[in-house]
Parts: sequence; C-alpha cells; structure tokens
Amino acid sequence: MKKAVILLSGGLDSTTCLALAIEQGYDCHALSFDYAQRHRGELQAAKQIAQFFSLNEHRIVQLDLSAIGGSALTDLSLEVPDYQQSDAIPITYVPARNTLFLSYALAYAEVIGAYDIFIGVSSIDYSNYPDCRPEFIEAFTKMANLGTKFGAEGGHFLIHTPLIHLSKAETIQQGVACGVDYAMTVSCYQLTAEGKACGVCDSCEFRKKGFVEANVPDPTVYV
Amino acid sequence: MKKAVILLSGGLDSTTCLALAIEQGYDCHALSFDYAQRHRGELQAAKQIAQFFSLNEHRIVQLDLSAIGGSALTDLSLEVPDYQQSDAIPITYVPARNTLFLSYALAYAEVIGAYDIFIGVSSIDYSNYPDCRPEFIEAFTKMANLGTKFGAEGGHFLIHTPLIHLSKAETIQQGVACGVDYAMTVSCYQLTAEGKACGVCDSCEFRKKGFVEANVPDPTVYV
Repeated sequence: MKKAVILLSGGLDSTTCLALAIEQGYDCHALSFDYAQRHRGELQAAKQIAQFFSLNEHRIVQLDLSAIGGSALTDLSLEVPDYQQSDAIPITYVPARNTLFLSYALAYAEVIGAYDIFIGVSSIDYSNYPDCRPEFIEAFTKMANLGTKFGAEGGHFLIHTPLIHLSKAETIQQGVACGVDYAMTVSCYQLTAEGKACGVCDSCEFRKKGFVEANVPDPTVYV
Repeated sequence: MKKAVILLSGGLDSTTCLALAIEQGYDCHALSFDYAQRHRGELQAAKQIAQFFSLNEHRIVQLDLSAIGGSALTDLSLEVPDYQQSDAIPITYVPARNTLFLSYALAYAEVIGAYDIFIGVSSIDYSNYPDCRPEFIEAFTKMANLGTKFGAEGGHFLIHTPLIHLSKAETIQQGVACGVDYAMTVSCYQLTAEGKACGVCDSCEFRKKGFVEANVPDPTVYV
C-alpha cells in the first residue's frame, strides 16, 4: 500500500479528504496541529476520527502560532466575526497557515517515504483564504519538489486536493458515500466548552448551508 | 525604517546575512529555531549575536523536528559523517528545513508588517542541500505571494539571499567589512559541550577553508 500524509484538522473537509484517500487505497498517516487555536474541540475530533478509520498513525504536532498572533483564530483578544458575504479575506485568516502545515507534512512525508500529501482545501464555499486556491497548491508543489532531496533527485511529491472544486454540499455527499459520520467533525471557530457550535461564524455558515443543499440531516449541535 | 525578518541560526552565513541587512538599513527582527538540533551552542550564539547587533527583537521558536527525524542533525542515533567531496546530498540534510523556517518567517513577517525576509543560504561551498539553491528560493517566493493575504491583495514578499552566489571566503570578507566578529558564530554540526568545533564535518570544512582563502584569521576553537 502506498503511504500518504493527510492533514487532518477534525473538520468536515479534512475528514472527507481522509475518507477519499482511504477509498483510493492509501495507507494514511494523519497529521494534526496544536497551534494554539481557540478551542481544542477540533483536535479531540481529529483523534476520534483517526480511531474511527483505524489509522496506523496520527501525529499531533505542537506549533505555537499564538506567539505570532495576527488572526482571530490564534489571538484571543480578537473576536471571531459573524459570517458576511464578501470577497474580502476575513480576520480569521491565519498568516501562512497552510504553507506551514504543508511544509511540516512535506518534511514528515519525506522521512516516512510518502510522496502523496492530501489537504482538504476548497476554493468554493470558502472564506477567500488565499492558501486554499489551486494556484497556491500548484506553487507549493513546485517549491516542494525543488526544496527536498527526494524532489532534487528526480522524485515527485504530489499534493492531492480532492475537494478543491467541490461545493460544501458536494463534499458532504462524497463523504456520506464513503461512510463519514459528520457528527464526529467540528467546523465551528468558537465551539463552546460543551461542544456546541455557534452557528454564526463563516465556518458554521458554510457547513449549515452545505447540509441543507446536500439534503443530508445536519448532525451539528448548535447553541 | 523598513522592517525585515532574518533567519538567524548563529552560524557564519546567517550572521553575515544579518550584518548585511543592517548595513542596508533594515530594522531587523531575528528568528531562530530550537528544532531539537544536536547541540544548543548555535542558539546561544544566536542570542549573543542578536545582543551584539542590538536587535529590537529576537524570537526563538520551538519546532520539534526530532519527532520526525530523518537527519543526522535531528536524530541522535545517526552519526554526523566527516566531510567528503561529493555531489550527493549528505545525511545531514534535514527534510524540508528551509521550507519550514521560511514558512515560519513568512507568517511572522506578515503579522509584523515586514515584507523583506533574509536567509543566508549559499549555493557555493555548500553541502548540496536542495533548499539552498536559487531555484528553490524563487519557487518559495512565488508560493509565498500566492498563499498570503498580503500577496493576494497585490503586495510582494521578497526573499533576500545576499550570499547565494558567494564563496565562503567572499562571505567572510563581506562580514568582516561589516564588523562581524566570527568568534561569536558557531558552524560545527557537533560542537562539544566546551564549545569546541570538530573540524571534520562538512560545516567545519567549508568554514576552515573559507578563512584560509579569505586570508582572515580563523577564530574557531577546534578540538
């Protein structure tokens, strides 16, 4: 079985992405980040999901982004805004987050001999984060193959983005077909201590709309 | 004064790079990484160098690469080899190290509003590390500008590599001209607890040769 490294946040997208990678026959090594995000609910979800799919390996990497701040997701003094339809990049953007996550995945992949990396980014129904766009992924792939021993010696790392052109509803439909139980996943940026989603942040908004459009019952518990 | 982020390992190259950035008039914010490297001598050197140049800011970021391993610099069960003239990439290569370091620098730069990042890589007198080559830096720059808010909104991050085409001797000459005291810097991959350099690893070899060719007294204490 070919090894793959999967970035697993514990959210709807990365969980679907993991399910699709498993469906494609990869031996999946999941990587999650404890990056001082606002709540730990998504890390607990990631652990549960890794167990659910009986992964051989799930690593949680400490990455202190609160020392850097600059985002409502890592700086507790900033408030998470309610969803607003806009082309602007909201304050929940975390500087260079996917660049950092993919860089770590790349290092890990090279060490374990995995040349396929999966990330559940989407450029449809998203918050205009620049590091979710196809052109970013393409540029990262090129850089990854120039900056690594494996790439420099003629190998090729591939970054798989199976959701990049899917709406949230299509993602949910694909996940359901692969047996994903979305009750395990956490999308909300400001989950309560009791595990309830706010229902008003960007992430909740896209998720709620996705379940409605997919005609799939939404298992999320909202406040 | 324009802000710049400088990757500062405490070695000969990054210290020269810092001195050149200061010479160019940048307000330098240095970033070092505690990445479970074999010895802490270079981090102590980095601190001393930051003080010497009276930097306003020097952050040391914890980055656990020993959990990943795969390099003689992060996995203590692997031995650091003596220098050998070769075109191969040696076992001291750390998977995706500069990708990770630059990604962190990018995140930090975007948060503090610095659009200039300095890294002291050289593709002359080096260990064939792929992430020291101009084509890697070029690809990283492109990726950085596609993956960040600043870049997506029309800004441009620039990665400065003032040493990339310099021999070690030329680097030393430029550093001396900028007032660098190389006694503060640490290059050896396996510094002893007493702060003595091994004199036989790749990094010692390039450094020794550099001082000889530059006709500058070598202040390094060897075992």
